[in-house]
Amino acid sequence: MYSVGLMSGTSLDGVDAALVEIIDYGIDTKIKLMEFITLDIPRDIKEEIKLSCHEEKSSVDLICSLNFKLGYLFSNAVKEVCKKAKFSLENLDFIATHGQTIYHIPKKRGSLIPSTMQIGEPAIIAYETGVKVISNFRVMDMAAGGEGAPLVPFSEFVLYGSREESIALQNIGGIGNVTVIPNTGNINDVFAFDTGPGNMIIDDVCQRLFGASYDEDGKFASKGMVNNTMLIDLMSHPYILSKPPKSTGREEFGQKYVDEILEKYKMLKSEDILATVTMFTAKSISENYKKFILSKVNLKKIVIGGGGAHNKTLLKYIKEELPNIKIVTQDELGFSSDAKEAIAFVILGNETLNESFSNVPSATGATNKVILGNITPSPIRR
Amino acid sequence: MYSVGLMSGTSLDGVDAALVEIIDYGIDTKIKLMEFITLDIPRDIKEEIKLSCHEEKSSVDLICSLNFKLGYLFSNAVKEVCKKAKFSLENLDFIATHGQTIYHIPKKRGSLIPSTMQIGEPAIIAYETGVKVISNFRVMDMAAGGEGAPLVPFSEFVLYGSREESIALQNIGGIGNVTVIPNTGNINDVFAFDTGPGNMIIDDVCQRLFGASYDEDGKFASKGMVNNTMLIDLMSHPYILSKPPKSTGREEFGQKYVDEILEKYKMLKSEDILATVTMFTAKSISENYKKFILSKVNLKKIVIGGGGAHNKTLLKYIKEELPNIKIVTQDELGFSSDAKEAIAFVILGNETLNESFSNVPSATGATNKVILGNITPSPIRR
Repeated sequence: MYSVGLMSGTSLDGVDAALVEIIDYGIDTKIKLMEFITLDIPRDIKEEIKLSCHEEKSSVDLICSLNFKLGYLFSNAVKEVCKKAKFSLENLDFIATHGQTIYHIPKKRGSLIPSTMQIGEPAIIAYETGVKVISNFRVMDMAAGGEGAPLVPFSEFVLYGSREESIALQNIGGIGNVTVIPNTGNINDVFAFDTGPGNMIIDDVCQRLFGASYDEDGKFASKGMVNNTMLIDLMSHPYILSKPPKSTGREEFGQKYVDEILEKYKMLKSEDILATVTMFTAKSISENYKKFILSKVNLKKIVIGGGGAHNKTLLKYIKEELPNIKIVTQDELGFSSDAKEAIAFVILGNETLNESFSNVPSATGATNKVILGNITPSPIRR
Repeated sequence: MYSVGLMSGTSLDGVDAALVEIIDYGIDTKIKLMEFITLDIPRDIKEEIKLSCHEEKSSVDLICSLNFKLGYLFSNAVKEVCKKAKFSLENLDFIATHGQTIYHIPKKRGSLIPSTMQIGEPAIIAYETGVKVISNFRVMDMAAGGEGAPLVPFSEFVLYGSREESIALQNIGGIGNVTVIPNTGNINDVFAFDTGPGNMIIDDVCQRLFGASYDEDGKFASKGMVNNTMLIDLMSHPYILSKPPKSTGREEFGQKYVDEILEKYKMLKSEDILATVTMFTAKSISENYKKFILSKVNLKKIVIGGGGAHNKTLLKYIKEELPNIKIVTQDELGFSSDAKEAIAFVILGNETLNESFSNVPSATGATNKVILGNITPSPIRR
């Protein structure tokens, strides 16, 4: 079976399209990545997405139209990745699309009930490509009382799960999050939570003190020394050692937080501040492992993915803090870190077509397992 | 096969739920209406729908939450109609839902592209009932270049089409619209268009001059006399004799139009004004038949449905204008006028499950026939 997975994240860096071959099915599912592209989002559409996400600036006419525009953009991403691979659209079995999240209400808030909204009309994608589309994965988990996220633990279990060793998948995006896959072979034993900041603080500090959008390879931090007083202070943030399940975001480790620490430690050298927040990020991860993972699971390996996997200083710090565990990056294992989420949705879409459950209630909080997603048939009957 | 069809119109009178049995399939599809209810829309939800439809007052958080709230409301409508029929949800094969239209852009307008948006999350309906849901019928027709409306001609062809006689289905809702089904047995020969005002002007005049929300049985109009000068003036409206395909709405025959005619003819008696706008509505229908239907099709019968079918004065006028054609109401034929649209979506949903085309390009303007709708599997695998 051949499929294209589509992912367009909230960072708006582009539309990820992964063309994959699905080999076997079930616990033995193997995925072969054939081609991967990230399609730029045109500036005017990016602007419309930002407006559509905004409580005050959004409006129904804009959202109605943007849903269709994104359908066309996602169709182009499918066409482009197939063209690059010289793979005919006619040989695609299905497309799995996450859509663009424009709003997410994990918990009741005033008159707003728990709900989530991803747009990028699947009918447009199906019509433009002639291929069946699986979409809207998050809503059914929320119908079952879950938060609709994270959905990746299922694909991580399928791709990385092993009966030989227990492993953890540590993603370092803006936020750090971990999925723990014990070697029981039972998806019910999988658990996941946010460890704390990922690149969010490092990037922001880097931008303000070094004028660079991120610390490439961790080179700025490598020149600094960790300041222990500041580190202890940062580590006292209540999120770090609060018990899972837990999730965090820009509300806790965003600009406001960075404003405060930069003001408080302005007497330190820039390199030292960056080294310290990099160590803070490393230790927020390692301390969560020590407290909440190693006590439960005999962990042998950590696989690091996301942009943070490229920060060598951060990786070095994490290895120092967890000396007895093998730490590798996703790319070292031969898995594309960039294509990870687009591939995850192919795996979820395949489960939908097989009428199989694919949420992980221990990760999302759902009361039961459900079949995720809906199916838009190819409009031209192939 | 058993199914519930759900319809919630823009008038917000309630959620229509029709429990039906589908007998046979294809050109011989027969539908037996087992039970029908209209569930009230709670006042707060009605308010949220109105806000969500409004360009200035709508916002993404409201729409995100309302999509789920309507999912729960629609689920309740399914449960209620099954309960009233003492029919177990477990025996339902599928649910077909139109959703609540919150926006529709039939043609490009500035930066807004042709698109349409119906909400009422199918995942919620599928989870709450345990039944497979077919939804979002209009989007695929728009993907194929159509206006996404009208979709009823397909079900009208299935239900009323006959090789013996050519018939017309005249719906009189706010707007009047006709579907013509020639006796060729070929759906490609079906055509449809808006004839002009339906109850829109009558209701508005009735409200302002008689303080009643509509002219029950046409009793107020029956006491008046048609004023010929006024009638000729009204009939000069350019829409009436403009060539199909054509569609109209509140922009042309809404409050502003009524303001103008009431001002211009304020010297007339209220009964006479109402009789005249009732005759105008009748003649806008009959003149369209004479000019655009009878010249093409040897029409034997007109079936009248929608709220206007209850207005006896209006019906009498139409009969006078078209003396050689048999005119009956849907209810006289044994078809529920109220349940018509909810049943239409069961028929469309059934086509989706059979991977069969169900738009009528000659009615919507689509460039080709397509399979409409998407399928949300029952989340609990039945």
